[in-house]
Amino acid sequence: MSKPLTIVKVGGKVIEDQAKFEAFLDQFAAIEGPKILVHGGGVMASQLAELLGIPVNMIDGRRVTCQKTIDVVTMVYAGKINKTIAAQLNRRLIPAIGLCGADNFLVKAKRRPNEPIDFGFVGDVTGVNHEFLNHLLQGGLTPVLAPLSCDETGQILNTNGDTIASAVASAMCQLGYKVTLLYMTNLAGVMEDPRDAASLIPRIDQDLAKTLHQTGVVSDGMLPKLDNCFVAKRSGAVRVAIGHWQKSRDLTDPTMACGTEIVL
Amino acid sequence: MSKPLTIVKVGGKVIEDQAKFEAFLDQFAAIEGPKILVHGGGVMASQLAELLGIPVNMIDGRRVTCQKTIDVVTMVYAGKINKTIAAQLNRRLIPAIGLCGADNFLVKAKRRPNEPIDFGFVGDVTGVNHEFLNHLLQGGLTPVLAPLSCDETGQILNTNGDTIASAVASAMCQLGYKVTLLYMTNLAGVMEDPRDAASLIPRIDQDLAKTLHQTGVVSDGMLPKLDNCFVAKRSGAVRVAIGHWQKSRDLTDPTMACGTEIVL
Repeated sequence: MSKPLTIVKVGGKVIEDQAKFEAFLDQFAAIEGPKILVHGGGVMASQLAELLGIPVNMIDGRRVTCQKTIDVVTMVYAGKINKTIAAQLNRRLIPAIGLCGADNFLVKAKRRPNEPIDFGFVGDVTGVNHEFLNHLLQGGLTPVLAPLSCDETGQILNTNGDTIASAVASAMCQLGYKVTLLYMTNLAGVMEDPRDAASLIPRIDQDLAKTLHQTGVVSDGMLPKLDNCFVAKRSGAVRVAIGHWQKSRDLTDPTMACGTEIVL
Repeated sequence: MSKPLTIVKVGGKVIEDQAKFEAFLDQFAAIEGPKILVHGGGVMASQLAELLGIPVNMIDGRRVTCQKTIDVVTMVYAGKINKTIAAQLNRRLIPAIGLCGADNFLVKAKRRPNEPIDFGFVGDVTGVNHEFLNHLLQGGLTPVLAPLSCDETGQILNTNGDTIASAVASAMCQLGYKVTLLYMTNLAGVMEDPRDAASLIPRIDQDLAKTLHQTGVVSDGMLPKLDNCFVAKRSGAVRVAIGHWQKSRDLTDPTMACGTEIVL
C-alpha cells in the first residue's frame, strides 16, 4: 500500500478565534485524500479552569494536571472543541468523527514519572492503534483527535497535541502510508525574527536545528515541535512542515515552497 | 444479514454513582456479540451548570438549552462521561469508541420549533447514519453514544438519550440487524408500586400502556420511555425491555423473564 495521508496539527490560537477557526476549517476541508486533524485548545481549558476556581499551573509551558484539571481538559478538548470541529467539518461535507486517545486505545500512554517534576495526569505516548485509524480511513472517515491519551487502567491523560500528531504520523508510516505532517501555526513557519516576513527559514535539517537552538532563534514551544517533526521524518514521513494555517492546503503540494520544511 | 445487535441505554442515575458505574460496565462488557451503549448524564450537566452560574431550567423534565447550556452538555456528555465510559470499557478489553450525533452526522436532527415552548438548542431526530454504525460494528467496535444530535448547519443539539437509543434501534433494524433494545434503570422494570418488588409488570402492550397512563401508574419520564419502546418495537426490534441495570446481561437472553418486556 502506498496511499497518501495528510495529518494536520492545529493549535489553540487558531481554533479559539471564531473567524480564524472557520477559515482554517475551509482550508482543511479542501485538502484532498485521506486526512487526520489533531487539535489543541489550552487557552479554552485554562479559561474553564479559572471559571471553576481550579488553579492553572504551568511548568515550562506544560500544564500540571490534577484530578480536577484532567476533568476540565477532557470536557474542553474531547467535548466542546473536538465535537464542534467534527460538526463543522460535517457541515462542509467532510465525514469527520471526533476521538481522543481513550477511544479503542487510540493513543496509549504511560503516566509520566513524578520525578523530577510531578505533572500529575500527563501521559507519555507508548503506542498508537494504527489499525483502528486505518479502518476509519478505509471507511472514508476523517478522524479528528483531541490531545488526550489513555493508560492501561483506563485513566485518561493529558498529552501534548504536537506529540500525538507526530506519534500518529510515525505509526501510519509503519502501515505504508505516504504521510505528510503539517504543523499549522499563526506564523509563516520558523522565523529568524517573527516580525520580519523575509526571515522565514525555508528548510531546517538537524544541524541547523541545533544551531538555531544554541543561538536562541528557536526556543520554548518550538523546540519540542521541531523534535516531533524530526521523529516523524525519521519514521519515514515524506513531508513534514511548519507553516501558517492559511496555507494548510498549499502545504500539501510538495512542489510549493511555503512554510518551513523539516528535512533530515 | 441477520446479525444480533444489543443496544443498551443507561441513565445518569447509574453512571453518576461510581460503584454502580463500575458494576454496570462489568455487566455491559459481558454482553456477547455486537453492541452499542447510549448514555445520559443530566445530573452531572446540572452540577457543572450550577458551578458556572448558568441557570438550570427544566420544563416537563426537559432541559431548556441556551447557548451556554449546550456548551455545558457538550462538555459533560460528549467529553467527560462519554470518554470515561470508553476508557473504562477499553480497560475491560471492549474496543469502545465514544461518539455523539455530530460525528459523521450520526444522529441528525432539526431544532425543535420555539412554539409552544422554546427549549433552545434541543433537537428532534430526523435520521441516523446507520451505514456508519454498521461500518464500526463490522470493525468489531463498540460505539458509545452521548445524547447529542446535530443539525445540517453543524449546530450541536441536546436530545434525549432514550429517544436516540430508540432511533438507533429502528435504524439498525432497517439494515437487517436482529435488535435487542434495553433501557437500564434503577428499578426492576415498570412497577405498579416502586416500593413493592412483587408489583413488577412483566409485559406491557399498547392497550396496557394506555391503561397505565390513564390510571397514573406510568407518568413523567416513563411515558416517553414507553413511547420510545413502542417505536423500536414497531420498527422490528425483536426484544425491547426496561429493567434493572444489574440485569443488563440477563436481559439479552430471551428465555429469561426479567424486567418489563414491551410487546405490540
